[in-house]
Amino acid sequence: MFVYADNAATTSISKTALDAMLPYLTENYGNPSSLYAFGQKAAEALAEARQTIAACINAEPREITFTSGGSEADNQALLSAAKLGERKGKKHIISTAFEHHAVLHCLARLEKEGFSVTLLDPHEDGVIRLEDVEKALREDTCLVSIMFANNEIGTVQPIAEIGALCRSRGIPFHTDAVQAAGHMPIDVKAMQIDMLSLSGHKFHAPKGVGVLFARKGLLLTNLIEGGGQERGKRAGTENVAGIVAMAAALKESCANMEKDNARIIPMRDKLFTELSKIPHSKINGSLEHHVPGTVNMCFEGIEGESLLLMLDDRGICASSGSACTSGSLDPSHVLLSIGLPHEVAHGSLRLSIGEYNTMEEIDYIIETVPQVVSYLRSMSPVWDELEKGLRPHLI
Amino acid sequence: MFVYADNAATTSISKTALDAMLPYLTENYGNPSSLYAFGQKAAEALAEARQTIAACINAEPREITFTSGGSEADNQALLSAAKLGERKGKKHIISTAFEHHAVLHCLARLEKEGFSVTLLDPHEDGVIRLEDVEKALREDTCLVSIMFANNEIGTVQPIAEIGALCRSRGIPFHTDAVQAAGHMPIDVKAMQIDMLSLSGHKFHAPKGVGVLFARKGLLLTNLIEGGGQERGKRAGTENVAGIVAMAAALKESCANMEKDNARIIPMRDKLFTELSKIPHSKINGSLEHHVPGTVNMCFEGIEGESLLLMLDDRGICASSGSACTSGSLDPSHVLLSIGLPHEVAHGSLRLSIGEYNTMEEIDYIIETVPQVVSYLRSMSPVWDELEKGLRPHLI
Repeated sequence: MFVYADNAATTSISKTALDAMLPYLTENYGNPSSLYAFGQKAAEALAEARQTIAACINAEPREITFTSGGSEADNQALLSAAKLGERKGKKHIISTAFEHHAVLHCLARLEKEGFSVTLLDPHEDGVIRLEDVEKALREDTCLVSIMFANNEIGTVQPIAEIGALCRSRGIPFHTDAVQAAGHMPIDVKAMQIDMLSLSGHKFHAPKGVGVLFARKGLLLTNLIEGGGQERGKRAGTENVAGIVAMAAALKESCANMEKDNARIIPMRDKLFTELSKIPHSKINGSLEHHVPGTVNMCFEGIEGESLLLMLDDRGICASSGSACTSGSLDPSHVLLSIGLPHEVAHGSLRLSIGEYNTMEEIDYIIETVPQVVSYLRSMSPVWDELEKGLRPHLI
Repeated sequence: MFVYADNAATTSISKTALDAMLPYLTENYGNPSSLYAFGQKAAEALAEARQTIAACINAEPREITFTSGGSEADNQALLSAAKLGERKGKKHIISTAFEHHAVLHCLARLEKEGFSVTLLDPHEDGVIRLEDVEKALREDTCLVSIMFANNEIGTVQPIAEIGALCRSRGIPFHTDAVQAAGHMPIDVKAMQIDMLSLSGHKFHAPKGVGVLFARKGLLLTNLIEGGGQERGKRAGTENVAGIVAMAAALKESCANMEKDNARIIPMRDKLFTELSKIPHSKINGSLEHHVPGTVNMCFEGIEGESLLLMLDDRGICASSGSACTSGSLDPSHVLLSIGLPHEVAHGSLRLSIGEYNTMEEIDYIIETVPQVVSYLRSMSPVWDELEKGLRPHLI
């Protein structure tokens, strides 16, 4: 059996998205900046995609800037807020310790450029507290950037509350909604979000395309300078086919959200319930505030990487953390941020399911993971010591 | 008849490119950063694409960084050289007045950050002189960035000579080869190029994907921070399908270059010869140093925009300058840089043909353009004054 359970890393392209994009890969190949009708056909497709995406998050079309993906959107959001802040002599940024690296590494660069950054720790449940944000606010705070849903543990943050707080203080609020878009309702007006990043390939659009929403009046700084595309805020010939596909995919995901989640959530809950029966295992992140599809657990005494490879051998695609850091041998910064000890964080597993998964696949995972965990523990000197009481169980 | 004669703005996707990419849009959708075999299949496709593209320009695979397009590649090249220069106290950059805006606007930003920029003017033939580059070199020059072929007039610059000069002085040399790649031989070793940008959609790959070549040892600065993709130098999940398509398209274009150009050049020359018969017309840029497909001409007494719209009406897609600036009412900065007066530069036409054009299409253009020019002149008060001797002919 082949089970793709890594939808937080990337998703397959939906038929709707593929059908929408194909004409722009073939016959309608005009450059949307061209004056002639053949180019304007591409420009109209862009305008329509912009409108569709805006409607999905309750934004205005002109508040939507197309980017090459979530990372670029995050980078441009942070750079823009930093430049705006700098002009007013405000150089303090609040974010969290468990952001995606697209945010964290950008902040590290800004720190080198003289910005001061406060990284809030989530609580053990994987949720940032509003009062922690409030306490961290300073006179010179120019940006609060807090992710909508964490990419590893799937916990959802109190976005509307943080939005209201920031708006009341006149501080721009950015959220990396890459893991939420298409899977949970997003309303930038109601949630008082000033900037928001999303990435097409997390909701069945192709890789290489994303969106930066920026509330009107918020001046963006270019990350890519050049031609006048995207109202002069993002140069480069637009990825028309990818953008059209992204709009179709997001529209479909939003339209089917309730129905899909009614299928996904019971599957995820079954995974949680059944895999929790493995002794010395632990669910990471609160189940109360959670994206529909993600399950993150730790199993004591094993290495996450060995677990993944053995699951791969059995046809199950899963990850230990974010795909973007899979080359790294360090334990997940997300798991450390919620207080897990290194040894435990090393034995993590992220399963992220989506609308294309079936209950048969879930049952196969539930059957396979305990076998693999048992086998790996039987080979593990650490587990041996734990069992003999030579080292204490941590979970 | 429908004639697409704007291949310098964008090209149709080749069947080879589409066939190569489709499996990565459908069944092989894994994230190349994932550990499991399904993700590694995508990683292998990336590695193969990197090798293919490197081979096309005589580079090493590890010298290839995938970007979202030519503009991003230009921006990253300039930023990287600027950062390297800054560390050594060198803050002078040499470029040209007729670069693409992705370079010019980036340089404008660097100027604001304290860099000093020398923009060389091309001579009337649209070619930069080596001695002008040499004269402009300073002790604190940290970058020479000169485009391979101009995007509006198609003139080719003495890249190998400039490369040799820069290498002998130890100054990094970047070239925006967006208009050359796939259409002319490029050898980064023989030409002593340190950085080179290219864009897939100019040689029959899809829009939204490009390459930055950087010679090994030349440290790139990230434009997009985040995950460890592209050896940590360009974050964001890779546009696998687009990259695979780009490699297939470039390989095909390079393999067929001689054969294709043997068809394209006679078509272009016929355009030049026949359209030059229109009185008070002028060919822009030397025919001696030229990309195969581009023809740029001015016709006195008419507005380029009206010409384009009338040609569009007759099924011919052409442009007056770069698609990236088509929204602008100013005359082309390229045409002004080669010394054309404003009035003349306003009446410009760029026809850019490719391997999919036919001699029948060329004949149709040759039949149509003179009719449209005559018609527009018959309506033009400026032409009326020119004919009555009330203002002097400039060409």
